[in-house]
Amino acid sequence: METDVVVIGAGPSGVQAAIYAARRKVSTVIIGKPSNSAAADARIENYFGVIGPVRGRDLLDNGIIQVKSFGAEFVEENVITAERDGKSFIIRTESGKEYTAKSVIMATGISRVKLGIPGEKEFIGRGVSYCSVCDCNFFKGKTVAVIGDETEAAMAAELMTKYATQVYWITKGPKAVKALVDRALLAGVIMKDVSPKEIRGDGKVESLVLGDDSEIDLDGVFIELGAKSAADLAMDMDLMPEMDNTIKVDAKYATKVPGLFACGDVVGKPWQVARAVGQGCMAGLSAADYAKGTK
Amino acid sequence: METDVVVIGAGPSGVQAAIYAARRKVSTVIIGKPSNSAAADARIENYFGVIGPVRGRDLLDNGIIQVKSFGAEFVEENVITAERDGKSFIIRTESGKEYTAKSVIMATGISRVKLGIPGEKEFIGRGVSYCSVCDCNFFKGKTVAVIGDETEAAMAAELMTKYATQVYWITKGPKAVKALVDRALLAGVIMKDVSPKEIRGDGKVESLVLGDDSEIDLDGVFIELGAKSAADLAMDMDLMPEMDNTIKVDAKYATKVPGLFACGDVVGKPWQVARAVGQGCMAGLSAADYAKGTK
Repeated sequence: METDVVVIGAGPSGVQAAIYAARRKVSTVIIGKPSNSAAADARIENYFGVIGPVRGRDLLDNGIIQVKSFGAEFVEENVITAERDGKSFIIRTESGKEYTAKSVIMATGISRVKLGIPGEKEFIGRGVSYCSVCDCNFFKGKTVAVIGDETEAAMAAELMTKYATQVYWITKGPKAVKALVDRALLAGVIMKDVSPKEIRGDGKVESLVLGDDSEIDLDGVFIELGAKSAADLAMDMDLMPEMDNTIKVDAKYATKVPGLFACGDVVGKPWQVARAVGQGCMAGLSAADYAKGTK
Repeated sequence: METDVVVIGAGPSGVQAAIYAARRKVSTVIIGKPSNSAAADARIENYFGVIGPVRGRDLLDNGIIQVKSFGAEFVEENVITAERDGKSFIIRTESGKEYTAKSVIMATGISRVKLGIPGEKEFIGRGVSYCSVCDCNFFKGKTVAVIGDETEAAMAAELMTKYATQVYWITKGPKAVKALVDRALLAGVIMKDVSPKEIRGDGKVESLVLGDDSEIDLDGVFIELGAKSAADLAMDMDLMPEMDNTIKVDAKYATKVPGLFACGDVVGKPWQVARAVGQGCMAGLSAADYAKGTK
């Protein structure tokens, strides 16, 4: 099928991009599974105009209704291959659908690096979080642990001291710059040089078991190991991702490949719904204008 | 009163910035009247996650509730003066309140250029619109006029042909580039070289009277004359606005003046809530980090 714009990824940024492209009256297809978005499992309360906490999934359901109401086609599938063919792009889905597009928006997001210990998956959104900036406020007066060695872990540990009454930082030697580590320690963070082994609880997180079999009673575990971006598809469209696997864009959210745009978490940090949405707006307008210009 | 961050302006961008700053646990004051925001009178249906049309004012009311819930102080007043004092900023309101801030976020928005003819003010949101990208979808199958000479008017006229059945373009000789003008005419826009004189209706727009006393029956009037930005305060803080009266910012939404950030419509086009919110997220995080760094 021929179309003006294909959006790859159905998280907040991709959905917002599709809304703007469709309203520009260019034919628009958005391909992706909202449930794969990092926002899907999040409780969100810091998004302008929406009093929270709301489930990311609920915002996404609304977004899909919006996208369809403006005439975009929504394909709830994964994209398998994407390639350039002259000035066009050919996108194929897992069920074998094929779209030839004048313009493509990569809104493929990121995938948080998982810890892979028992209890982690079970308690996502019930005490296990991958984003302290998003979820800090849910842990007022509680006890939490932050797991990770890098900058994001150090900043998360310090931030959480403003909310939680006790913050443990589980790290095998921090790799963040010393000033950040010092600030976390100064704020009262207790550092533990032991591996995490298991997250336990009953319906919600209640304790963290460490490698030395000690057990910390707590209410929340922040896993701050960074993320992998889903930028792999970019190379198939002749675009080389950056060293950190993000996609570089200009002020119009255009990549170096004519007709190829990107927005949202795949573009880089911070991974926030509000920012993803702002970028989606811009990328959607840019891609629509590009597709119009090629007519 | 001393504070870490002052946000000037209580539109979507300022409110989102204040939400992010406050959640970083820096003391945050947001000063402005939501009713002055360009979004206040708008009907919004293209903002991710919120099925519309909703009144901008309703989103803003929610935003103020969010801001307060995260501990920011909301001052519903105009800012009268802003100045730099060494590394700090001193902000004064119309009632004489004074705040000394480590960091300031300018989210002062824009003010749409008005036409100044009878009926214009009366029918804002009831057929009179200043934003075709925002409101196009409300005029499906209707007759509309676009008023203005520049690029935004040409693009608005062409866009509206995709929605309305008849589009008049009231212009005293278009100043947009020829390709855009041609595209509008090709799409079926009827150009009229007469001044608009009065907008008439009963509860909603019903007709437009022109300078030659002819009257066009229609449902909508798009006034696309551009906008003035409220960037005046910038100069008092040692920052020179651009030639087009916008504020220039870097990727962190920092201006050239240390501690002074800007976001939203004052930064430039397009004037969209989604984009303003994305920028507010970034400016709020940046200003909070700046204020923390000066401690």
